[in-house]
Amino acid sequence: MTSKLSHPNIQNGWFRESGAMWPGQSMNIEVNEILHVEKSKYQDVLVFSSKTYGNVLVLDGVIQVTERDEFSYQEMITHPAMFAHPNPERVLVIGGGDGGVLREVVKHPQVKEAVLCDIDESVIRVSKQFLPSLAVGFESPKVSVHIGDGFEFLQNKRDYFDVIITDSSDPVGPAESLYQARYYELMRDALREGGMVSTQGECQWLHLPLIKEVLTFARRLFPVAEYAYTTIPTYPSGQIGFIICSKDKNANLKEPVRKMTAEQELKLFKYYNSEIHRAAFVLPNFTRQAIAGAGEQDKSE
Amino acid sequence: MTSKLSHPNIQNGWFRESGAMWPGQSMNIEVNEILHVEKSKYQDVLVFSSKTYGNVLVLDGVIQVTERDEFSYQEMITHPAMFAHPNPERVLVIGGGDGGVLREVVKHPQVKEAVLCDIDESVIRVSKQFLPSLAVGFESPKVSVHIGDGFEFLQNKRDYFDVIITDSSDPVGPAESLYQARYYELMRDALREGGMVSTQGECQWLHLPLIKEVLTFARRLFPVAEYAYTTIPTYPSGQIGFIICSKDKNANLKEPVRKMTAEQELKLFKYYNSEIHRAAFVLPNFTRQAIAGAGEQDKSE
Repeated sequence: MTSKLSHPNIQNGWFRESGAMWPGQSMNIEVNEILHVEKSKYQDVLVFSSKTYGNVLVLDGVIQVTERDEFSYQEMITHPAMFAHPNPERVLVIGGGDGGVLREVVKHPQVKEAVLCDIDESVIRVSKQFLPSLAVGFESPKVSVHIGDGFEFLQNKRDYFDVIITDSSDPVGPAESLYQARYYELMRDALREGGMVSTQGECQWLHLPLIKEVLTFARRLFPVAEYAYTTIPTYPSGQIGFIICSKDKNANLKEPVRKMTAEQELKLFKYYNSEIHRAAFVLPNFTRQAIAGAGEQDKSE
Repeated sequence: MTSKLSHPNIQNGWFRESGAMWPGQSMNIEVNEILHVEKSKYQDVLVFSSKTYGNVLVLDGVIQVTERDEFSYQEMITHPAMFAHPNPERVLVIGGGDGGVLREVVKHPQVKEAVLCDIDESVIRVSKQFLPSLAVGFESPKVSVHIGDGFEFLQNKRDYFDVIITDSSDPVGPAESLYQARYYELMRDALREGGMVSTQGECQWLHLPLIKEVLTFARRLFPVAEYAYTTIPTYPSGQIGFIICSKDKNANLKEPVRKMTAEQELKLFKYYNSEIHRAAFVLPNFTRQAIAGAGEQDKSE
């Protein structure tokens, strides 16, 4: 197919991912057609249809979502925290403008209210046009949307949410402040007793110093904080992690407190199941060594 | 640095992986210098030094090993099978000419004899020159090397080995016959009672029909056969799997029968630990569904 649109990351029919956070490597995806190019108020927005990954959303040159593998990310940033909470009635999603995390959140019948706060309306608009299987998340009557800065949104909330999921891009660009201790403090204060946090936590094959830094302040602010991960081919190095925290000092994040039957799980989820929940927290030795001691000094002070 | 060598997969300072088994996607790695280019009797051999992944060995355009992440593959194709065997004295490695699997095998003090059979002497020679941290595996006095076809080598062996590890390239080119039922039959017959097999088993994000096919005949030939996987950034889609089989109908592959202390594990392994052993067999729902029923029909016949 021909297209009149062009984008600097697409040459000779291939998209080439660029990123300062993974020097010396690049994931390339073959393009069918460029569907949308836009400079939003906050970022460069690109959507293309690909030969083998369906439609692809790219922000500032970095792949956010492909229709073929997005389920792994959406399910695994959502369900470990949701299933580790006994009764998640009020859920806040910061970022996540594609709607995929909302789609997963409302699979839990306990949810009465799901609020999404994304800084960039263009992501929501573009997703509704080109990623309908994700944007379906906006259709639930339990969902409300707030366009604005997540940092500011949290400053006006106290003791309200049961689960806060931060589905952000990397700490370069508009999401930078979401990787700082002050942001985790705001999330903590916006949570009710027993509340949980799940945030995009970067890749153990690429970003161990950042992961240790975030875990260190997360463990200063929450009695329980852990790193878990999922596999996903189109994220750098083929996987992405999550920082999951609880305000309940007795919480065991690694174990679902609510369970479905295997049949229910197979019907609702393409990636998540209660065994994958536990396995997601099992880290290889090189990660264990790199994050050993994160937050321990603070606790003993 | 400058280099007088050239290779068709390296353009403008970047190596671009090509492969018919992962259409529409390509991993690219930035090159420092091309170190070696050769057409061996069996395959195209390329070694380059990279900006961020150390030295890289490429066969027929496909990345086999990078110094930065090879440990994940070598440890995980080796140790789940080795630790699930109560006393692995005689070990055979088919392929694995870089020496990395041998390096892992001889970490088990039970091993008295480790035989490597690779069809292509060039891989061994090139590894000794450019990948010394892998080729160190050849230095153990327990190791002997046979240059030849694995298929033929197995035909002369009966009831001999405790563990056979097939560290092969993909089923396109010289390794094609290693993905067929006849090969699994030969491995079974070359094993002693209670023997184990671990073979490169391709990627669940890319090759589910092939995985199901191999599991199906593996379960016809062995009483126990399972799929496990590890994460590795420079393999297609960021991970690779293994087909692990046992001749012992009571074997539980998912559980190490010999254990080390956490301190010993941290000293010997960068990826493997006894918890990762168990987690490697935990599959996401899309894989469970795709391989459901593999081998069941055969068993009931």
